[in-house]
Amino acid sequence: MAIKITGTGSYIPDVVEKNEDFHQHEFLNTDGSSINHPNEIIVKKFKAITGIGERRYASEHLTSSDLGFFAAEKAIADAGIDPETLDYIIVAHNFGDVKHNTIQSDILPCLASRVKHSLRIKNPKCVAYDILFGCPGWIEGVIQAQAFIKAGMAKRCLVVGSETLSRVVDIHDRDSMIYSDGAGATIIEATEGDDGVLAHETASYTYDEAYYLHFGKSNNQTLCPDTKYIKMDGRKIYEFALTNVPQAMKNCLDKSGVAIQDVKKIFIHQANEKMDEAILARFYKLYNIDIPEDIMPMSIQKLGNSSVATVPTLFDLVKNNKLENQSLTKGDVIIFASVGAGMHINAIVYKY
Amino acid sequence: MAIKITGTGSYIPDVVEKNEDFHQHEFLNTDGSSINHPNEIIVKKFKAITGIGERRYASEHLTSSDLGFFAAEKAIADAGIDPETLDYIIVAHNFGDVKHNTIQSDILPCLASRVKHSLRIKNPKCVAYDILFGCPGWIEGVIQAQAFIKAGMAKRCLVVGSETLSRVVDIHDRDSMIYSDGAGATIIEATEGDDGVLAHETASYTYDEAYYLHFGKSNNQTLCPDTKYIKMDGRKIYEFALTNVPQAMKNCLDKSGVAIQDVKKIFIHQANEKMDEAILARFYKLYNIDIPEDIMPMSIQKLGNSSVATVPTLFDLVKNNKLENQSLTKGDVIIFASVGAGMHINAIVYKY
Repeated sequence: MAIKITGTGSYIPDVVEKNEDFHQHEFLNTDGSSINHPNEIIVKKFKAITGIGERRYASEHLTSSDLGFFAAEKAIADAGIDPETLDYIIVAHNFGDVKHNTIQSDILPCLASRVKHSLRIKNPKCVAYDILFGCPGWIEGVIQAQAFIKAGMAKRCLVVGSETLSRVVDIHDRDSMIYSDGAGATIIEATEGDDGVLAHETASYTYDEAYYLHFGKSNNQTLCPDTKYIKMDGRKIYEFALTNVPQAMKNCLDKSGVAIQDVKKIFIHQANEKMDEAILARFYKLYNIDIPEDIMPMSIQKLGNSSVATVPTLFDLVKNNKLENQSLTKGDVIIFASVGAGMHINAIVYKY
Repeated sequence: MAIKITGTGSYIPDVVEKNEDFHQHEFLNTDGSSINHPNEIIVKKFKAITGIGERRYASEHLTSSDLGFFAAEKAIADAGIDPETLDYIIVAHNFGDVKHNTIQSDILPCLASRVKHSLRIKNPKCVAYDILFGCPGWIEGVIQAQAFIKAGMAKRCLVVGSETLSRVVDIHDRDSMIYSDGAGATIIEATEGDDGVLAHETASYTYDEAYYLHFGKSNNQTLCPDTKYIKMDGRKIYEFALTNVPQAMKNCLDKSGVAIQDVKKIFIHQANEKMDEAILARFYKLYNIDIPEDIMPMSIQKLGNSSVATVPTLFDLVKNNKLENQSLTKGDVIIFASVGAGMHINAIVYKY
């Protein structure tokens, strides 16, 4: 039996927020003090590190579950399946549905119930639940779908990653420029063959790392301290990721039995261009070989960091030849990898 | 191989909120109009239907993940295991950590990361994630733990249900009297034998039912309409539960191969005493037999409806002989069953 991705879909929001759109923001340090540089310099520095030139925001009338539904519809159409035959709908996110200009996360009912409702699926045996697992949530959803299939509890699952980080950013924090909105979805099925998911790896580091990404108050100390936004300790996360992600990827690849030379693409969470490049360099260094050209497709320049949505969206784009110099051929071995709030890390080695 | 609950723990908050404490509330209809009865009558009627005489609220300085941690500590001690040997920590909830007197759900990082952090577990191979699945979240977490064990991905899991509904109630809504806070936790392990989990059943009804429980505005129309609270369509939920829960329980029992006469206890989600009694009556009617005495332990009179926490708390209480006229003997076949936001229903048939 093989466990394969038989359909993909993504939803890239319409609103393009360019770096220049941040020139009028009032950025502050965490202690509330002014940053002694003009915004043009701050934004230029930001671009040099993260690679982000623009990002996408969801239209005001849409929420995360809407984005997830749009991506799910496409994945179902791509797989050519009857949605009534789905055994599971797993939706990964971090903040639920946050309406434009409000501050509450709406997670009642869970987003998977909303997506299933919007898909007009009647079959009650299709179990719809949400997983909260930071940015690695979509990959972890695939790993859970795989578990249900292996345990004989499912044959066909829909796994969605959907997020609207634009609704939870502190506009006084430079890190707000990183975050974006989006959704990716995949159909995971038990099929014949020896391809599909070859190995997986997951790790949760919480002893010192649990709060590296957290919900915290604005840098603007005149705002209500009870209103919280997404906050990160960028330096610690960078060091953490470089120490632990390459090793997790190696553990996963070694488990799969595939040689490093046979890896054709690495789809890594689009967190930060420099960080992703450093992770890639360390990963290949663990094998003492050079980094192959075009091995790591990147979408961060145009799409920013949409958390759980980056990996399935990137995979969908490359699969459909929508990213320059990037394509996939049947039989290619690829790696999915992610790191994020929790702090969680995971990876999947997959034969396309 | 058997998949068994080898340890249980629960945390029952200290603050006792009695029905009389609602006598001064200003209850309103959903359209904002006054209810033409004195509160004493409203509260008396409420008690007659739900059975709730008092409920527990978490102390102001605690959040849901704290409650979950307290219950988890006890379950680990009860099982006598080294927490470093846990393969998974699964935390079910509905609203994340909501600090006292604030309106935002804090779910970054996920609560499982917080519980693992508080337990001081270092092992990164212990995967910590949250599941959102309405009130049936704890039972679904056990079903997922079972899947990981069956798939060869885990041997030992901690499954926690924790909730602070007192932080999301609309004080102008009579239904606010139903909700309470609490946490229950269990260790699920692969062991020898033919007991443990015998069968499970899950259903998600979303076509018409997705929003029967939802996040909505206060009955007090002078309050900000963007601030949302837990809201339910009680009548529809009652009818839905009576139609679908007994059948799901029967499906599960029939799958297990156990005769109805051999069922010794039914641990059902403590949503509403009258509803639970009606579900029980319909369940036994499906088999055309009388309801055995003391078959359904109840805690709702003193503990209210703490969502995901009710079933594991109730099981922990009975297992430890803390509920009058209720006890368990090795070999007893029991049923866990729940229904809630989503709308989700699930059941487990378990040999103690």
